[in-house]
Amino acid sequence: MPDDVAIVREQISIANRMLANEGILDAFGHVSMRHPNNPKRFFISRHRAPKLVAPSDVLEFTLDAKPVVPTDVRLYGEMVIHSCIYEARPDVNAVCHHHAPTILPYCISGMELKPIYHLGATMGAHVPFWDSRDDFGDTALVVVKPEEGRSLAKALGKNWTVLMRRHGATVAGTDLPQLVFRTIYTCVNAGLQSQAHAHGHVGALTAAEAEKAREYNLRPGPIQRAWDYWMRRLNESEALIAASGGLKPAPAKGASQKSARSRNAKTSARGGRRKRTR
Amino acid sequence: MPDDVAIVREQISIANRMLANEGILDAFGHVSMRHPNNPKRFFISRHRAPKLVAPSDVLEFTLDAKPVVPTDVRLYGEMVIHSCIYEARPDVNAVCHHHAPTILPYCISGMELKPIYHLGATMGAHVPFWDSRDDFGDTALVVVKPEEGRSLAKALGKNWTVLMRRHGATVAGTDLPQLVFRTIYTCVNAGLQSQAHAHGHVGALTAAEAEKAREYNLRPGPIQRAWDYWMRRLNESEALIAASGGLKPAPAKGASQKSARSRNAKTSARGGRRKRTR
Amino acid sequence: MPDDVAIVREQISIANRMLANEGILDAFGHVSMRHPNNPKRFFISRHRAPKLVAPSDVLEFTLDAKPVVPTDVRLYGEMVIHSCIYEARPDVNAVCHHHAPTILPYCISGMELKPIYHLGATMGAHVPFWDSRDDFGDTALVVVKPEEGRSLAKALGKNWTVLMRRHGATVAGTDLPQLVFRTIYTCVNAGLQSQAHAHGHVGALTAAEAEKAREYNLRPGPIQRAWDYWMRRLNESEALIAASGGLKPAPAKGASQKSARSRNAKTSARGGRRKRTR
Amino acid sequence: MPDDVAIVREQISIANRMLANEGILDAFGHVSMRHPNNPKRFFISRHRAPKLVAPSDVLEFTLDAKPVVPTDVRLYGEMVIHSCIYEARPDVNAVCHHHAPTILPYCISGMELKPIYHLGATMGAHVPFWDSRDDFGDTALVVVKPEEGRSLAKALGKNWTVLMRRHGATVAGTDLPQLVFRTIYTCVNAGLQSQAHAHGHVGALTAAEAEKAREYNLRPGPIQRAWDYWMRRLNESEALIAASGGLKPAPAKGASQKSARSRNAKTSARGGRRKRTR
Repeated sequence: MPDDVAIVREQISIANRMLANEGILDAFGHVSMRHPNNPKRFFISRHRAPKLVAPSDVLEFTLDAKPVVPTDVRLYGEMVIHSCIYEARPDVNAVCHHHAPTILPYCISGMELKPIYHLGATMGAHVPFWDSRDDFGDTALVVVKPEEGRSLAKALGKNWTVLMRRHGATVAGTDLPQLVFRTIYTCVNAGLQSQAHAHGHVGALTAAEAEKAREYNLRPGPIQRAWDYWMRRLNESEALIAASGGLKPAPAKGASQKSARSRNAKTSARGGRRKRTR
Repeated sequence: MPDDVAIVREQISIANRMLANEGILDAFGHVSMRHPNNPKRFFISRHRAPKLVAPSDVLEFTLDAKPVVPTDVRLYGEMVIHSCIYEARPDVNAVCHHHAPTILPYCISGMELKPIYHLGATMGAHVPFWDSRDDFGDTALVVVKPEEGRSLAKALGKNWTVLMRRHGATVAGTDLPQLVFRTIYTCVNAGLQSQAHAHGHVGALTAAEAEKAREYNLRPGPIQRAWDYWMRRLNESEALIAASGGLKPAPAKGASQKSARSRNAKTSARGGRRKRTR
Repeated sequence: MPDDVAIVREQISIANRMLANEGILDAFGHVSMRHPNNPKRFFISRHRAPKLVAPSDVLEFTLDAKPVVPTDVRLYGEMVIHSCIYEARPDVNAVCHHHAPTILPYCISGMELKPIYHLGATMGAHVPFWDSRDDFGDTALVVVKPEEGRSLAKALGKNWTVLMRRHGATVAGTDLPQLVFRTIYTCVNAGLQSQAHAHGHVGALTAAEAEKAREYNLRPGPIQRAWDYWMRRLNESEALIAASGGLKPAPAKGASQKSARSRNAKTSARGGRRKRTR
Repeated sequence: MPDDVAIVREQISIANRMLANEGILDAFGHVSMRHPNNPKRFFISRHRAPKLVAPSDVLEFTLDAKPVVPTDVRLYGEMVIHSCIYEARPDVNAVCHHHAPTILPYCISGMELKPIYHLGATMGAHVPFWDSRDDFGDTALVVVKPEEGRSLAKALGKNWTVLMRRHGATVAGTDLPQLVFRTIYTCVNAGLQSQAHAHGHVGALTAAEAEKAREYNLRPGPIQRAWDYWMRRLNESEALIAASGGLKPAPAKGASQKSARSRNAKTSARGGRRKRTR
């Protein structure tokens, strides 16, 4: 059991860095997994950019988004995105929230995102659009209160991807490799749909095509092949960084990180010595 | 003779990695070559991402898409794309199937892809559009059955490039360097045509211009110059990876690959311990 | 006090290289900070590309854009962009001027740049458009005279970002990390707004949403998280360069820089032996 | 004198690799310089991709495009682009021909390329459009005959940049750093103009603005600053490659080059053992 948890911590940190390496996540966004042995718990990193997430950053949470072990490290503000989906969807075991540049135009224009080629069919037949104004009026457009998380989970419904007006997308998977696959190819589909729109015409897959293509591409073979590819790319990026000396692929609290922080603390001194919650 | 085969294996693995390095292939797509001494046979990699293909991954197949030496490794699902074109077109000795991001908008919008500048003329005067619905109705949009492969080869006809609705493109060449050249510059042409379309007007090359430009650019000189360029870029990428330690340019079943696989196997444990066909 | 200045020099050089590393600055553009202990002074690099700025390049200036210590090194031509904003805006402690490729289309087309998603709200509710023709008629489109600097500062007014017709943008911050955050996410917003425009519709955030999202994202937590991310990326780029030998991350007047200069001096010999002001 | 020539050879090879490193040149395109001591001669590389050009590849030519020292190495087919411009324009000392992806849409759509921001003004007030059909009817769209070169030089006239229908652009400079600066910022301008066009409106610089901005940016200071920046980027790329072992930055006829060639020669064996002119 402790071994299972170690694997989950490692897998979450890999998925974070993999999606950062593929340009889906930048300073923001996060990936979580449900506890392999306790469906009432899930794991997610403490508050930091996905590219920087190490296994030791990954903490355990209850489904009301509280850390199982009390902590004073800074946590993500939008934990309820994850907890509320795990609560509402027993079939979901992995969740990603992101602001990918191919997806955001849809969140802004309101144009419908739809599967328009075979690999894109993995997003699901329908992608609902969550408008926070419907339930909450004017907000900061983030999902921080339990009722906001529940509203989003309700909008997701039985689907696998939900767009969030003026904010980003949240993606669900039955497991982590499926989640990563769906997240990446939904983004590719989004970019292609925009380009086809510029050609002047974007027809639809037939419903049966979308269903068949989804089934075909979510088989273990294609998912494994793609995972191996993204893992290789991540391994290569991180090996290069490691070889260039000093910077470990996924330092928890290494020297370089500390020095960046201390330099920065000094920087903001003139600007008001603001306190950093950690 | 065994030497010729060794060269073919190496060349196929290089072309896979070269086209991945140039952004044409990602986790999917594949490159094949006809057997240099037996026109009833061809070579293609086992099931893996093009960037990862090593010479030892390349296997020999008959023109009914069966491996010459029985194997239990996982094979590509779309082998018939290659076998059926080799069957139908004795003049073709190399084939690439891909989902390049510059090409897919045409497969989605239905806008005609056409040679609109001198290097793009190498795609051929006409690029047919294959719609799988014509012969097969609703499918997963892939080409896995012999009759699907034959239908695609028929659509290709005497041309050198065929678009596949909602899926990608298949490109043919008289030899591998020509195939790589045509594949890359057809993608460049596609991107430029989309941009010129956004300017509001895309006129055509005259038929004679297209013919003359095709002939000029498919001479050995330009093809060799471009091949040297892409090879240099690939060599540089792979030398850097090799120098960063541990990851060999084209490992067959090396340690890093194995560990990625085993980590991943663990990952999917919670999600249902799905079996990986290899 | 001398220590504070050393930190400022280092911070300015980091911000220059960080924004270059993120594709905001190229050969041109610059970043400055107000003196931490003397509001009538500010620091900015001598005349060189942002990617090349080292702490020792950073010099101290008065608010009439004169170097505190007389120097014969070449200085930026557009110093008054910075001095005039520090003069007009006591709450501003850091300024960036740039020509980012996502922003320039707005400076050319005149399309209004506006916050259209949560992180973009950090640009401020309103982004004024400065047209140098209003006060000065035909110019070289740069800001080199004190009156041009004052005109620009007036156009900025109480806002945080100002577009400059046919030229670029100038961004202000209460401190350096806020400045970097606003600069980068304003550029991301600009790119997304263009893409949403291509979808055919770009609605607006409500005024209250823009205000709440700005407040939320300008808290220390998100700014620190993003700063750590960009710092890591910069550290990795520079460690790699350093490891490849000879080229130090931020050489002041190192060997490689010198040799590039001397080679170049030779180059221009034939073309007229033009004199280089340094 | 022999020293001057050595510098020219080095400078041409640097400019080729610099423009390749900045994405202007790919497998094709070339850069030349007039002989510093003999205006009836110019230097250009033998036939190879710009990224691969070493000083030893650079050969001397007469203004009728013949090598001064007879050679059996393969030469560029489009030498007359350079020779005819040097013949017609005594004020031009450096020429670049390229197919940059930002420029080609204009060569295809026929949309006018014009200076639309301050740095773009360096392209010159007017960019003529050369249509090879006017003088020659249907061709392969390349410039290989002396009369084609003269026609292009005539189209260039007193300007500094000429677009070539369905082919690319040719750029002239009074010296090499100016040429590189103009080439790169004309491409940036082209990309920005396309984006502004997508916004729906692209107004013009006033004639006086274009003139003043051109003068301002073609001073030695800005050109040197940009050259230092691109040189640093090139040095970093090449140092990294060199450090990764075996591949020298600019090998003339090194091992890796030879092996790529021999592998390729073997590749094409099956496809018809075509002869490579070198």
